Amino acid sequence: MALIVAKFGGTSVASPERIQKVAQRLIAKKQEGHDVVAVVSAMGKTTDELVALAASVNTSPAKREMDMLLSTGEQVSMALLAMAIQARGYQAVSYTGWQAGIATDDNYSSAKIDNIDTHRIREGLETGAIVVVAGFQGITTEGDITTLGRGGSDTTAVALACGISADVCEIYSDVDGIYSADPRVAPRARKLDVVSYDDMLELSSEGAGVLQARAVEFARKYKVVIHSRSAFSDAEGTLIKEVAPSMEQAVISGIAHDTSEMKITMRGLHDEPGIAAKVFSILASNNVSVDMIIQNVSTDGKANISFTFPGSQKENAMEAVNRAAEMLDASQILIDENIAKVSLVGTGMKSSPGVAARAFKTLAENEINILMISTSPIRISVVVDGSQVEAAVRCLHTAFGLDSDTIFEETQLSAEEIAAKMNKGR
Amino acid sequence: MALIVAKFGGTSVASPERIQKVAQRLIAKKQEGHDVVAVVSAMGKTTDELVALAASVNTSPAKREMDMLLSTGEQVSMALLAMAIQARGYQAVSYTGWQAGIATDDNYSSAKIDNIDTHRIREGLETGAIVVVAGFQGITTEGDITTLGRGGSDTTAVALACGISADVCEIYSDVDGIYSADPRVAPRARKLDVVSYDDMLELSSEGAGVLQARAVEFARKYKVVIHSRSAFSDAEGTLIKEVAPSMEQAVISGIAHDTSEMKITMRGLHDEPGIAAKVFSILASNNVSVDMIIQNVSTDGKANISFTFPGSQKENAMEAVNRAAEMLDASQILIDENIAKVSLVGTGMKSSPGVAARAFKTLAENEINILMISTSPIRISVVVDGSQVEAAVRCLHTAFGLDSDTIFEETQLSAEEIAAKMNKGR
Repeated sequence: MALIVAKFGGTSVASPERIQKVAQRLIAKKQEGHDVVAVVSAMGKTTDELVALAASVNTSPAKREMDMLLSTGEQVSMALLAMAIQARGYQAVSYTGWQAGIATDDNYSSAKIDNIDTHRIREGLETGAIVVVAGFQGITTEGDITTLGRGGSDTTAVALACGISADVCEIYSDVDGIYSADPRVAPRARKLDVVSYDDMLELSSEGAGVLQARAVEFARKYKVVIHSRSAFSDAEGTLIKEVAPSMEQAVISGIAHDTSEMKITMRGLHDEPGIAAKVFSILASNNVSVDMIIQNVSTDGKANISFTFPGSQKENAMEAVNRAAEMLDASQILIDENIAKVSLVGTGMKSSPGVAARAFKTLAENEINILMISTSPIRISVVVDGSQVEAAVRCLHTAFGLDSDTIFEETQLSAEEIAAKMNKGR
Repeated sequence: MALIVAKFGGTSVASPERIQKVAQRLIAKKQEGHDVVAVVSAMGKTTDELVALAASVNTSPAKREMDMLLSTGEQVSMALLAMAIQARGYQAVSYTGWQAGIATDDNYSSAKIDNIDTHRIREGLETGAIVVVAGFQGITTEGDITTLGRGGSDTTAVALACGISADVCEIYSDVDGIYSADPRVAPRARKLDVVSYDDMLELSSEGAGVLQARAVEFARKYKVVIHSRSAFSDAEGTLIKEVAPSMEQAVISGIAHDTSEMKITMRGLHDEPGIAAKVFSILASNNVSVDMIIQNVSTDGKANISFTFPGSQKENAMEAVNRAAEMLDASQILIDENIAKVSLVGTGMKSSPGVAARAFKTLAENEINILMISTSPIRISVVVDGSQVEAAVRCLHTAFGLDSDTIFEETQLSAEEIAAKMNKGR
């Protein structure tokens, strides 16, 4: 007899058939005696289609109107899901973000939730209905529709779970939980039963796309237990929750990798104070999200700066760097589009010295060259050449004792699920 | 310097290109110094597509969820229209039905407007923006989304025009005004400059699909001047407004025809009181909208009842009639699917006796057999065989002096416009 928030992403509601399956799943929970609030994303590629439609009438549409447009995507899927539940003889009621009381600031397209007035959701639950809420959207105090930006539906689910004091926030997706590494890259990866908020946050930030870092951050702040599980099977997934420090912890929880970044190196800069500040303020003003940075001085007294950034921002980054190079007399600009970041994550690292050394030694033994290094108290990230990402993940996975006895077989998945996994960072 | 409400139907916003044209049109009005509130329908076939999507998950979806679903259609087109206006450097702001303050009852799928809180629209206008409002939708006092049903967007436009005391409510469609008859049927039909509310109401009710009767009724009640005009040309259309009785009026304003009805005849009923009541209460309980009714008694003392109804309700009608026939021992049921109703409409009829006689004589001279007759103080409708509808409209059009000197050439229209006209009753 629990109160459950269950979030289904765009892939899970991509077609009427899949919506029917989600309806069955929610009804099964209801039949077990639970109260259920479902949170849904827009169907499949709907959001992309709406973005394209907007682009056809305005190359840089106002964000208020964009949010007005995009919020229709979830409104369609939530109404259809409510209908599908009703078709099976169960009560359901759907609410848009504003009807569900999700109040946000007016930062259109990436609004933050200020608070949630849950009275309509509670009313819906009291009538015995399965309540279906549109993810990704909210309303300003002025009464304008906002969207929460990337990862918004996960955030809606976690925020609602917090608002109604749900026992668990189940996040359904095309993968069946959090793995110690991407099973397609490391076939001996194992599904984790539990991951701490801190570790999940690092894993999410470093390329494990199953959960959005923002939602995990919210969950950590309000102690919402997340259950990451598959929309296509009944298997238990991974719990993301507070893990007592006294618990016996593995040194490393998992290994994330990310091949979506690129690296730019500026050579021959005058070695004087403020150079890095200039470069990165130009990049920031061009909306480039810089990840890792290295600055060093070569033998000729000139400075070199390297940094990584999302490959999708390549044009903005090059434009900014060319401007900076002119200003700072750089002798050369190099871009490496084929890099990979591999990150070891584990809260246990804090109490276990020598992790970095062991990681670097392992990579060296496997003849994998480290291009850049970045660390946090519970994470070690290295940048390697893109061609070596699989080898790097595998040898680290083995070296840190993460290998499972069973080998993950990709053929267990349908072509559809594999396609979905390939696209999991969306 | 007027305040204008301009409504554009689904055909007018069916593609990004057409939305751009609507934006240009609205901007032209703004440039002339007018304040503009646009009301839009969903793009093209969007509503049909959403209905099909709903049917794929639930064969009889709850109306609340249906309205939730369908209301997204206008939300998409209004956001795109606002973006298209902004792309041209003009201010625009879009509002959903609930944001525009359109309060309705909770009669989902065919809600009635209770009142309109126009403060957001006024605020928008005060900032100098072109205000774009979603047609067809409103909100209940509980905060649930409703739709207004068939003709809802026209009604939204008229109601808003009333609420903000607009000078005129322009209703743009694929036809350029109200004609004395359908030009495709009567090539000498003339475009009318002015039509009274009463005549327009009869014309709309009797098959002239340009304006929805419901919107005309609303306009008549609140004295809103409607300008029915083409979305594809700048030509003046037809004004629908109060016409002073003292004005010199034509006897007949126009001739409407309607081929969408069917006729059922029940024969051999016992001629006793209450038979008609029984037949029509069964039809009503089956949601059949009966139009014309004839009851007579044949020589054998048995009663015959004939009635017409929308062809789209054929199944419901037959089911009801079969039930009634069994109850009342009818000897025979006949259905005629190929009939046409031709209606002469004109307020001038009231002060001009002999119109009916002249109409019947004209039809007789042209060897057109009258199957049924129905009249109101300003309308005479006859049902004729479907094969004779063109002949009937043309001979009446000529007989009542409506013929124009110029002949309407269908080739003046693009294939698209013709297709749109063919579909104008939607």
